[in-house]
Amino acid sequence: MGEFELLAKIRALLPPEGHRVRVGSGDDAAVTCPGGATATSVDALVEDVHFRRRHASMRQIGHKALATALSDLAAMGAEPGEAYVVLGIPSDLEEVDCLELLRGMAALAAETGTTLAGGDVTRAATLILATTVVGHAPSSELLVTRAGGRPGDTLVLTGELGGAAAGLVILEQPQATGGIPSEHSSAMRERQLQPTPRLAAGAALARCGATAMIDLSDGLGGDAARLAEASGVGIVIDFPTRLPIMGMVEGVAEAAGVDFFDLALSSGEDYELLAALPKGRVDEAVRAVEETGVGLTPVGALAQDGGVEIRLPGGGLLEPHGFDQLG
Amino acid sequence: MGEFELLAKIRALLPPEGHRVRVGSGDDAAVTCPGGATATSVDALVEDVHFRRRHASMRQIGHKALATALSDLAAMGAEPGEAYVVLGIPSDLEEVDCLELLRGMAALAAETGTTLAGGDVTRAATLILATTVVGHAPSSELLVTRAGGRPGDTLVLTGELGGAAAGLVILEQPQATGGIPSEHSSAMRERQLQPTPRLAAGAALARCGATAMIDLSDGLGGDAARLAEASGVGIVIDFPTRLPIMGMVEGVAEAAGVDFFDLALSSGEDYELLAALPKGRVDEAVRAVEETGVGLTPVGALAQDGGVEIRLPGGGLLEPHGFDQLG
Repeated sequence: MGEFELLAKIRALLPPEGHRVRVGSGDDAAVTCPGGATATSVDALVEDVHFRRRHASMRQIGHKALATALSDLAAMGAEPGEAYVVLGIPSDLEEVDCLELLRGMAALAAETGTTLAGGDVTRAATLILATTVVGHAPSSELLVTRAGGRPGDTLVLTGELGGAAAGLVILEQPQATGGIPSEHSSAMRERQLQPTPRLAAGAALARCGATAMIDLSDGLGGDAARLAEASGVGIVIDFPTRLPIMGMVEGVAEAAGVDFFDLALSSGEDYELLAALPKGRVDEAVRAVEETGVGLTPVGALAQDGGVEIRLPGGGLLEPHGFDQLG
Repeated sequence: MGEFELLAKIRALLPPEGHRVRVGSGDDAAVTCPGGATATSVDALVEDVHFRRRHASMRQIGHKALATALSDLAAMGAEPGEAYVVLGIPSDLEEVDCLELLRGMAALAAETGTTLAGGDVTRAATLILATTVVGHAPSSELLVTRAGGRPGDTLVLTGELGGAAAGLVILEQPQATGGIPSEHSSAMRERQLQPTPRLAAGAALARCGATAMIDLSDGLGGDAARLAEASGVGIVIDFPTRLPIMGMVEGVAEAAGVDFFDLALSSGEDYELLAALPKGRVDEAVRAVEETGVGLTPVGALAQDGGVEIRLPGGGLLEPHGFDQLG
């Protein structure tokens, strides 16, 4: 498979270019006229670290590579603009596989209005995708960092937690989790293999005055701690009275013999958004986010100081820790 | 080695942020206010494809990863702005190695005025660096693509060819090339291991009205063909009367038993710039580029049609072909 032949076939798959793009894929660099402010993030997916080829289709891998990168733009409240992809291809991957992978990426790009504006294709020992995404906003003040949260702000969470981590358990231990009803297990596998970047919800939260925001790639505990640290605040989260956990995650934990709280709160890849909002704007934000097709739940509050406390049933406290996928 | 501890140490190495950067490394995304137009390019270096760890120091690998990406900005005539780096780290690489690698990258970033504004660190089977660079210009019309060359334009080349390919031969076949004088062999190894992006020369060529430009990553033959195709023109290059080849490249070819023309013209990684200029502006461009510390040589002309012809001594023609590093 020649690099240049593959690149030509890849270009034929790309969705139309966005209005900011002057020169797209194929020159030394893409040329854009951003106007306003840009938010730029890079994200890598590595075979046997972030995914296994026996679990995911090529389309799902392509989708996930772009989705996890776009999730960072969602967490800024940015409008997605352009994506640039480095594809490291192992020797046993066929051209048809690479094109399937790009089809998965191109479909999500078209759906989210993202232009695939450039890339690089190289050989590699295992499959690797490094995706750079550029998002836009009229001014930098309209982009939400992790750093603006204030004591007294309400902590809100989009969607439900635990599905992606439970999906990974189901993929890795199919025998143990065979008793989980198939509608639940397939929903959880999909959360793991084909996550949805919460772009519209992130934009809605930014419009509703979110003071700080982060996407949950490493689990609620660890990512909440990052938001707290950047904002110089403490965070108190009440579990389980207020925390939305995806259906049957507890069942998966039981079946596989893993800790439920770990699975739901310290395991990653749900790509939901965690945001701080001024108290007076929570109701407005709940309505605005629900209009985007996903729920928004107040789950806690920002405090003057201290780290992150997740209050467990019976009065215990969960010590959040980071999350490393696939061991 | 923890990802977050490593990231904190990496951030401590970063040079100061450029004036367009509002939020640098450490949030979900970097925030910049570009103004005007941006040129964005991605480039990957993969162990045992683009470099070998036994040949290159960690600093050189870090330098080269950023240099090859910046070379694409040089070929647009763009001012370097921000860089984003994905680092895939194999299990046998120590933290101290990663930091050395980042030091090499940070030194070139400081030298070129580039802000290392973000990145992602992950495990990987072999060492891989994927670098995204963003360059700037007051407007998109001031950036030089490959596509604007016109028949009658003069083809000009910065610097000298063949050094990087000869350096690779010296690294791979040290016994065969042991007789090459050490000042030459070390200069050629440096061209291979620590290339210089021709940023100031590219900006000078853009100011002097370059109609098309490309950087030579795959060899003169293949990259000239790419410029010709994008511009819809033919190219005639005269060899060797006008083509600058680095000293002793012919000696390396003889010693190692490889074809001299292949080494000089079809082998890659010199990262010199090839540009088309209106005839009347060549003298001005030669002076402007020489002021940046590198030579500029008229090497041929753009023709009405036909592909790329490289006229060899004795009347023969070289058929340029692509180049694949390290086999």
